[in-house]
Amino acid sequence: MKRISILGSTGSVGTQTLAVVAENPESFCVEALAAGKNVELLAEQVKQFAPKLVSVTDPEAAAELAQRVGEGVEILAGDAGLEAVATVSPCDLVVAALVGSVGLHPTLSAIRAGRDVALANKEVMVMAGALMLREVKAHGVTLLPVDSEHSAIFQALSGQRSQDVSRIILTCSGGPFRGWDAARIAQATIEQALDHPKWDMGRKISIDSASLMNKGLEVIEARWLFDVKPSQIEVVVHPQSIVHSLVEFCDTSVIAQLGLPDMRVPIAVALAHPERLALSLPRLDLAEIARLDFEPPNRKNFPCLGLAYRALAGSEAAPAVLNAANEVSVAAFLDGSIRFCDIAAIDERVLDEHLQERAGMRVDEIDEIVAADAWARERAHDALEQCSGGVA
Amino acid sequence: MKRISILGSTGSVGTQTLAVVAENPESFCVEALAAGKNVELLAEQVKQFAPKLVSVTDPEAAAELAQRVGEGVEILAGDAGLEAVATVSPCDLVVAALVGSVGLHPTLSAIRAGRDVALANKEVMVMAGALMLREVKAHGVTLLPVDSEHSAIFQALSGQRSQDVSRIILTCSGGPFRGWDAARIAQATIEQALDHPKWDMGRKISIDSASLMNKGLEVIEARWLFDVKPSQIEVVVHPQSIVHSLVEFCDTSVIAQLGLPDMRVPIAVALAHPERLALSLPRLDLAEIARLDFEPPNRKNFPCLGLAYRALAGSEAAPAVLNAANEVSVAAFLDGSIRFCDIAAIDERVLDEHLQERAGMRVDEIDEIVAADAWARERAHDALEQCSGGVA
Repeated sequence: MKRISILGSTGSVGTQTLAVVAENPESFCVEALAAGKNVELLAEQVKQFAPKLVSVTDPEAAAELAQRVGEGVEILAGDAGLEAVATVSPCDLVVAALVGSVGLHPTLSAIRAGRDVALANKEVMVMAGALMLREVKAHGVTLLPVDSEHSAIFQALSGQRSQDVSRIILTCSGGPFRGWDAARIAQATIEQALDHPKWDMGRKISIDSASLMNKGLEVIEARWLFDVKPSQIEVVVHPQSIVHSLVEFCDTSVIAQLGLPDMRVPIAVALAHPERLALSLPRLDLAEIARLDFEPPNRKNFPCLGLAYRALAGSEAAPAVLNAANEVSVAAFLDGSIRFCDIAAIDERVLDEHLQERAGMRVDEIDEIVAADAWARERAHDALEQCSGGVA
Repeated sequence: MKRISILGSTGSVGTQTLAVVAENPESFCVEALAAGKNVELLAEQVKQFAPKLVSVTDPEAAAELAQRVGEGVEILAGDAGLEAVATVSPCDLVVAALVGSVGLHPTLSAIRAGRDVALANKEVMVMAGALMLREVKAHGVTLLPVDSEHSAIFQALSGQRSQDVSRIILTCSGGPFRGWDAARIAQATIEQALDHPKWDMGRKISIDSASLMNKGLEVIEARWLFDVKPSQIEVVVHPQSIVHSLVEFCDTSVIAQLGLPDMRVPIAVALAHPERLALSLPRLDLAEIARLDFEPPNRKNFPCLGLAYRALAGSEAAPAVLNAANEVSVAAFLDGSIRFCDIAAIDERVLDEHLQERAGMRVDEIDEIVAADAWARERAHDALEQCSGGVA
């Protein structure tokens, strides 16, 4: 019986995690849940999974939840609540499924409390990977990635020695602009950018998929999750998204994980590790799929991918800077203020400014990351003002 | 330092094994070598690797070897020599690289002596898989397959629990007759059958690749090497031969091993397990390969694949019967006595006869396998006589 705690239980990964738990009641028990303001869903989860501790965003939500669930569960709120859920004891695994930088502190607390962490909150490794990796090593915990690419790498590394790894190869669908020329990409509309060929995703991540920034951020995550050099991480475009990623070893063997796209698989892999859960999902039929294609990414037309490598090489805060600048530039593209090609231009300008001032910067505390993030957002807004004049 | 002994040191796998050993002198030492009559090469190997024991086919070859290498190494001959090399002590790993049924007894002896076995001698598992599996379990040894497909499966299983495996998927190039219709296959010439699209192999295995019997025999090997039910083993045609095989787990995750075709990789994997050796070989570049295709095997046009499943379901001796009948029928095709389609017809007739008489037969000793093999060859020759009258 694995005891789990979930940060972000009412979100997409949180609810799918609880669905997997519900189907395997003999394998898991839920110790604590943290959610935002969706008190109605959280109340249902409390009734179904009987955690001893829950947390919500603020005291008002806490009061409302108390009314709905009655006695028998401790209800907290705010940062202290997140902290309590992240470090609840006893607990074997914390599922970090918050979205954005709000997950930084509680995830770090879980690691420092010696908990293994199933990590869906990608900003944790994008923004604070260097710091998190040091803490993971110091506390001897395991990070279990919850997204298809990094879960694939995690699975491919199973039973292997880290010193035998020569390359990590992240696959990338290529996004809606695969094969487009630079001039056409520059003028792409919001509708075109949101029209992802494979998945119906949120707007921000759809734009990141179109610019390949999403893959760049995954390169950053991979660097810290698997403690490899950036030069050991490659990206290959694979439009069918069946091969979720690959690892090459020193004897030239390549191990890949394949499957139909379904988040429940990496969630189940992370929850059950080192075992596997039986899932009633459609099976991959390669003969039916018939064909898998691969091509190199076009780094010239998709400069965001290169920015991620530059950030990794630049400073321990640079990935957080790049991520923050990109959040601002993508929001500006989505509200029609800038062209698609301006996203990368703004991201690059802010990254350059950071590296001119702080190349080689080391990060020892979350606060430094939060400050770098805030600085980058300001600089990105300044860059936007200079840039948005140019939009037709 | 791993101590190894090689059965079949002057053959293709034997020499490549020693090449890997020579490049990693800090990792391996050679305790014993067994070869056939290639005394010249064996003498060179003795000088280079300084085993304490060697064995050759007969006393004449032993005398010639003694002349070439002088004192300092014990030289044996015949079955007793093979036995001594298989069970030399101390030894960590026996490389079973003999060809054909001559490897049955020494491989079994190595297992019974508690040695891990790197298995390239495919007839061992094809002919005597049920017996070998029981002995492997009884003696707690590890079988390390040395061919690209089974090595791929072995690697995909690394770090996984056997109870989580749902399917093993063997890839198959499809051979030179992929996509041909049945009438054209029936009349295929020897030259056409030998014209394998991917590899330049020996004549017997080339014909087996054309008929898919080679893949059928690999299904049989996989059943015993990995202790799975025949219904858990599938074959998918993959003409590029880059994905060497795959394993599907109960959570629908599929793990595959990929690479450029080179026997040194599975040899190195088996020798170094659970570590990996750095090999200076070309790396797989998926973007350069660009495309991987998959299709279901055509079981109607290639009935040999189905015969392998029937043999597995039929009796513990049936795979040996099928293998022996196939050796006879393929030889007859290669000397022009029968048509290509007669290979499967003869194999099937002999298998049917065996199953009519001995369905469910259990095998406890190698001698029973040897007897079944001899019986099948006789029956196949009888069938040939009836059949060859029909050749144009």
